[in-house]
Amino acid sequence: MSEQHPEHSTGGTYTVKGKEFTRDTRYIPTRITEDGRDGFPVEPGRYRLVAARACPWANRAIIVRRLLGLEDAISLGTPGPTHDARSWTFDLDPDGRDPVLGIERLQEAYLRRDPEYPRGITVPALVDVTTGAVVTNDYAQMTLDLSTQWRAHHRDGAPDLYPEHLRAEIDAMNDRVFRDVNNGVYRCGFAGSQEAYEQAFDRLFAALDHLEDHLTTRRYLVGDTITEADVRLFTTLVRFDAVYHGHFKANRNKLSEMPALWAYARDLFQTPGFGDTVDFQQIKEHYYVVHTDINPTQIVPHGPDLSGWVTAHGRESLGGRPFGDGTPPGPVREGERVDPAHTPLDRPTGALRA
Amino acid sequence: MSEQHPEHSTGGTYTVKGKEFTRDTRYIPTRITEDGRDGFPVEPGRYRLVAARACPWANRAIIVRRLLGLEDAISLGTPGPTHDARSWTFDLDPDGRDPVLGIERLQEAYLRRDPEYPRGITVPALVDVTTGAVVTNDYAQMTLDLSTQWRAHHRDGAPDLYPEHLRAEIDAMNDRVFRDVNNGVYRCGFAGSQEAYEQAFDRLFAALDHLEDHLTTRRYLVGDTITEADVRLFTTLVRFDAVYHGHFKANRNKLSEMPALWAYARDLFQTPGFGDTVDFQQIKEHYYVVHTDINPTQIVPHGPDLSGWVTAHGRESLGGRPFGDGTPPGPVREGERVDPAHTPLDRPTGALRA
Repeated sequence: MSEQHPEHSTGGTYTVKGKEFTRDTRYIPTRITEDGRDGFPVEPGRYRLVAARACPWANRAIIVRRLLGLEDAISLGTPGPTHDARSWTFDLDPDGRDPVLGIERLQEAYLRRDPEYPRGITVPALVDVTTGAVVTNDYAQMTLDLSTQWRAHHRDGAPDLYPEHLRAEIDAMNDRVFRDVNNGVYRCGFAGSQEAYEQAFDRLFAALDHLEDHLTTRRYLVGDTITEADVRLFTTLVRFDAVYHGHFKANRNKLSEMPALWAYARDLFQTPGFGDTVDFQQIKEHYYVVHTDINPTQIVPHGPDLSGWVTAHGRESLGGRPFGDGTPPGPVREGERVDPAHTPLDRPTGALRA
Repeated sequence: MSEQHPEHSTGGTYTVKGKEFTRDTRYIPTRITEDGRDGFPVEPGRYRLVAARACPWANRAIIVRRLLGLEDAISLGTPGPTHDARSWTFDLDPDGRDPVLGIERLQEAYLRRDPEYPRGITVPALVDVTTGAVVTNDYAQMTLDLSTQWRAHHRDGAPDLYPEHLRAEIDAMNDRVFRDVNNGVYRCGFAGSQEAYEQAFDRLFAALDHLEDHLTTRRYLVGDTITEADVRLFTTLVRFDAVYHGHFKANRNKLSEMPALWAYARDLFQTPGFGDTVDFQQIKEHYYVVHTDINPTQIVPHGPDLSGWVTAHGRESLGGRPFGDGTPPGPVREGERVDPAHTPLDRPTGALRA
């Protein structure tokens, strides 16, 4: 197993003594495009998004698919929160098999793509239902392609999450957020030395301080509407107090102690398409059970109290038009709803303890 | 090594799979008394208090000794924050030896008491300097005896930490605080099963909620002055956000999210004799380095931000007379001061990051 294997893959060892954490960013670069240049044209019903709710990189794709209304065009398969050294598994599905792909382990779809597939079995993955083989697991390109290549199949009122005139600004924001925040929390948690940890910690909180300033006067990261940049920051922020603060020792302060970031995160959480994709129980189980080298007891914390997520955020006063000229998505599809016991949404505030 | 060995002793394994944590409360019951009934009469200069700053049970004795002004009567030896499977060690002292006892490991003083000493090598311990043997490690009785048996050697203006007319109330408070809070955090952190952890978590936060109510209208736990009960609660609260919240998964919320308890803890922290005994760096190193079965990487968190400890607490408005008819202790003795880099005291607020 490579030292650089990605965390959202499989394998029992995440820290390497004396080393900093380096993410393996070699994904399958095949793209699904309008023109089908890589052999995989956009085609409703042909592809299945396999995305564990627990995983922040997969959570991005679940959010974007829902914001854009691609539920009819691309179906969703959801592996459970924990996995073994070989693969994410469909243990939440009847008989432990994905009902469309018919497989028990996501690894099977990777091996259909390449019987010698050498890297981690990661989510999100887009699988060609006609062959059962993974087309791509390149999560960063994947969500951009949902926005730009699948436009013909977006719902009426879908927002433009990657508007042309803002792309340079979004890309720059995404670069920094990836390096210091999305991946920065993992660099704290999987550091193999005190020095590597402290460097990652400093970079993470410097970036969060910068974002705190940035968001004090702006409702969203780029422009005045929700964009891809907000999706990418959100999936890390929503996991911060529940996992990264304790499990990854990203503990200068909780997210809830940074007023602008915390209000920003609650604003998005309460926006249709964001919080309704988040399963806090699966998130906690994933990290605390899978990373046995940093939590050998595999005990899953009962906290934190999640009731704050549904409190008023006051961000409306900053203006902004969440969906631009578009509209929010409708209710979550039947069969895709988060277990009500795993979210503070739709509960009287305070009713959910942990 | 017994499964029930106390956490503030030595030994590499703190959790036992499938079991709840049970503290070994069998201490050496010998007492140092005015009448010398156990063979150890009160005698200035004869005994040395060995107390690691890291340990909450030892921290109690350091606080009480200082509040009562017993520095000249009972000297202080301070083992470093970490220890191996055999013993706390005097690794912070020149040549790694306690300058009075001349020993490298506290274990030596236990073996002088009993060459077959069968239980954990714990702090605090009172050692007879004339023989080099431990007299007692019964931390609960120890601080009460400092208050009641050493009265002739208290400083002028020493407070009465265990006033006769309040003893029943203090004892009852101490019992509940020990069971659900002092030891409760350990029952969370050393739980060997999810069920045992969740039971401990529920009891801990139920007790903290009760104390939060109690302290909303009262400045101190019992009566209107500082007592032994406050000392015992304080040493757990001061470690809560730095250690217990993350390392022991006591994470429904931080102490700083419980307004009355947090203000109460800051009030005490800023009272001479409390915060000036607290070394946050040693505290963090102790827990995160010693408990390798729950933190195998031994990485010590850089957070939390400690600057909140020196902010205004507003508790004066509740009345109360911290030292009753007495006075606060004077400055900390030369040679007993906490490393200024390890405390937010005497720093401009915010200057200390972690």
